[in-house]
Amino acid sequence: VKRVATGIETVDLGAYEHYMLKEIHEQPQALAATFSSGDGHRIRDAVFGDGAAAAFDSTRCVQIVACGTSYHAGLVARYWLEELAGIPCQVEVASEFRYRRRVAHRDTLLVTVSQSGETADTLAALRHAGAGEFLASLAIANVDNSSLVRESDLVFLTRAGTEIGVASTKAFTTQLVALLMLTIALGRRNGMAESQQQALIDGLHALPELVARVVALDSAIEELAGAFIHKHHALFLGRGVEYPIALEGALKLKEISYIHAEAYPAGELKHGPLALVDADMPVVAVAPTDELLDKLKSNLEEVRSRGGELYVFADGDAGFSAAPGLHLLPMPHAPEVLNPILYTVALQLLAYHVAVQKGTDVDKPRNLAKSVTVE
Amino acid sequence: VKRVATGIETVDLGAYEHYMLKEIHEQPQALAATFSSGDGHRIRDAVFGDGAAAAFDSTRCVQIVACGTSYHAGLVARYWLEELAGIPCQVEVASEFRYRRRVAHRDTLLVTVSQSGETADTLAALRHAGAGEFLASLAIANVDNSSLVRESDLVFLTRAGTEIGVASTKAFTTQLVALLMLTIALGRRNGMAESQQQALIDGLHALPELVARVVALDSAIEELAGAFIHKHHALFLGRGVEYPIALEGALKLKEISYIHAEAYPAGELKHGPLALVDADMPVVAVAPTDELLDKLKSNLEEVRSRGGELYVFADGDAGFSAAPGLHLLPMPHAPEVLNPILYTVALQLLAYHVAVQKGTDVDKPRNLAKSVTVE
Repeated sequence: VKRVATGIETVDLGAYEHYMLKEIHEQPQALAATFSSGDGHRIRDAVFGDGAAAAFDSTRCVQIVACGTSYHAGLVARYWLEELAGIPCQVEVASEFRYRRRVAHRDTLLVTVSQSGETADTLAALRHAGAGEFLASLAIANVDNSSLVRESDLVFLTRAGTEIGVASTKAFTTQLVALLMLTIALGRRNGMAESQQQALIDGLHALPELVARVVALDSAIEELAGAFIHKHHALFLGRGVEYPIALEGALKLKEISYIHAEAYPAGELKHGPLALVDADMPVVAVAPTDELLDKLKSNLEEVRSRGGELYVFADGDAGFSAAPGLHLLPMPHAPEVLNPILYTVALQLLAYHVAVQKGTDVDKPRNLAKSVTVE
Repeated sequence: VKRVATGIETVDLGAYEHYMLKEIHEQPQALAATFSSGDGHRIRDAVFGDGAAAAFDSTRCVQIVACGTSYHAGLVARYWLEELAGIPCQVEVASEFRYRRRVAHRDTLLVTVSQSGETADTLAALRHAGAGEFLASLAIANVDNSSLVRESDLVFLTRAGTEIGVASTKAFTTQLVALLMLTIALGRRNGMAESQQQALIDGLHALPELVARVVALDSAIEELAGAFIHKHHALFLGRGVEYPIALEGALKLKEISYIHAEAYPAGELKHGPLALVDADMPVVAVAPTDELLDKLKSNLEEVRSRGGELYVFADGDAGFSAAPGLHLLPMPHAPEVLNPILYTVALQLLAYHVAVQKGTDVDKPRNLAKSVTVE
């Protein structure tokens, strides 16, 4: 019998209209439960399974393999692992990874990410990894005793609880917590300062409260959503670690509202997608205060000067002001490393409200299944 | 004074209605000119510049950095370098690469790709590469004496001739020839069999004639284009090395027809984009006969069963038949390694004819510049 490993055992809708909304709201608890498995003061290697310490000692590279939303979690982790832990990291879609002749670097840890632990291509990627191609395999999954969990050397179980909405929400953000914990565990072997480790752990402690503050923006986001319901397109922009969040925000909107949303790293705008921008193409910007903010602002000016309507998610320090053509959703200021998680939650709510207002089947969007267990 | 290094010096439109069409038609010559710089029998290291032999002897990894269409050329090269030459390869958008703290592998060759040699982010990536971060830098560019060419250790000049249409065509395919030549040069140092080298070189000799056969499909593709002109969306699908070609086909359509075209690796369909598929979302498939064809066919069946109209580019061996909901564009059968180039040419013609029939400004699409020389 498969079970999800969590304290959140209820699968009743309760007061919520949809499972997706319930699951968005459960994120503060789910994130806290996932992090507390690491014990809260330091990240114990053992939380990744027996033998994790030895494998991590030898890890010089990380290869992440996943599909869909889990792939986006991997893309975020790549920025973290390279920037914070100094470990080279590659991320690849499982259906591509499994079928090509590739060349692995020495001492590479294979990390698979899947909510169900049964995603067909991801599982096949693990099974078909060449003998000796990888140092060890680590599964990040939400379902205990799933195939990925049983067949990997190391396992981190996220504590998202049962996820029923087809569009993944709390599974994704708990995957990010798991990957940040992995970043700390690998980073401390690779010269990450004690103070830096402590700052990241403090951030993880602060996370549930900050996510709750984003969830509380629900009605402000609901109001913003009205502008999207008659649109057929949307462009999501981010730079650096926020680019995968733009991808995830676009995917949520696609999945449940059937709006053709696409994400770009903002620096690529002038290399093509800017041709699409006009009044019918709302542009959503993931714009927390960080060192790329000024660059992003200059990209957004390009959009405005072409008549595009901007929907900017930014904290107070980012210096945006609402204006004709610029709609602002004020986000809490937070430690930079948490922004991918916080902005994801806001974009989940945006997709949710657009879909509800359009009247689509939010929890069971057309054509899609919860877990893709066949190719 | 900057000049393009080529025999094709005319910038007159001649009998063509647009520069883009002229440049599509010039590809057989441009490809032959680019390849013949390598002398035709073997790939001389010297064609990449003085010192190439020594640098290639030490190359253990390749890092490609580029923007837009040139980035897609890099994505194709990654499949070639890993599959054919056994060299690990990473590819990154320049505006992302330049701003993040990354970890380079030892003995990595930095390859920048840019038609103009002046692309701002690509140039900045080269300039800001850390001291000792890379073994050497190689620029693949179409303009001699451009900044990228002057500032790189090694240079390969493509012989596309002056490209005037904003949407890059012949520059892209000549970049692919350059990258295939690089694959051979690195591969022969890494155990690539003589017979394999010879087969690739024979393929490059056959390429201009095969491209001419694709160009001759012009009116068949023009006919297909009519189905797109009232659509607002399109999905381009490919697997493996054809996935970047799907990306490039979608980008061409975006740039000049303003249709919101997006590409996906076909295996990712069920992880989200399938929700978008209905009769208003034509789906273009890049489907040459290769080992992934059966997988791709199964993805396409998913599309058809959801009411999507398929536009399949495939050779006669692929076993597709035109049917209600399945429009077939028969491509020549060719050595597998050439397919990315041949299918690109067909998709360039598709984008061109859609744009012409829509009446957009094909050579100067709105909002875009030929070379992005500022951030």
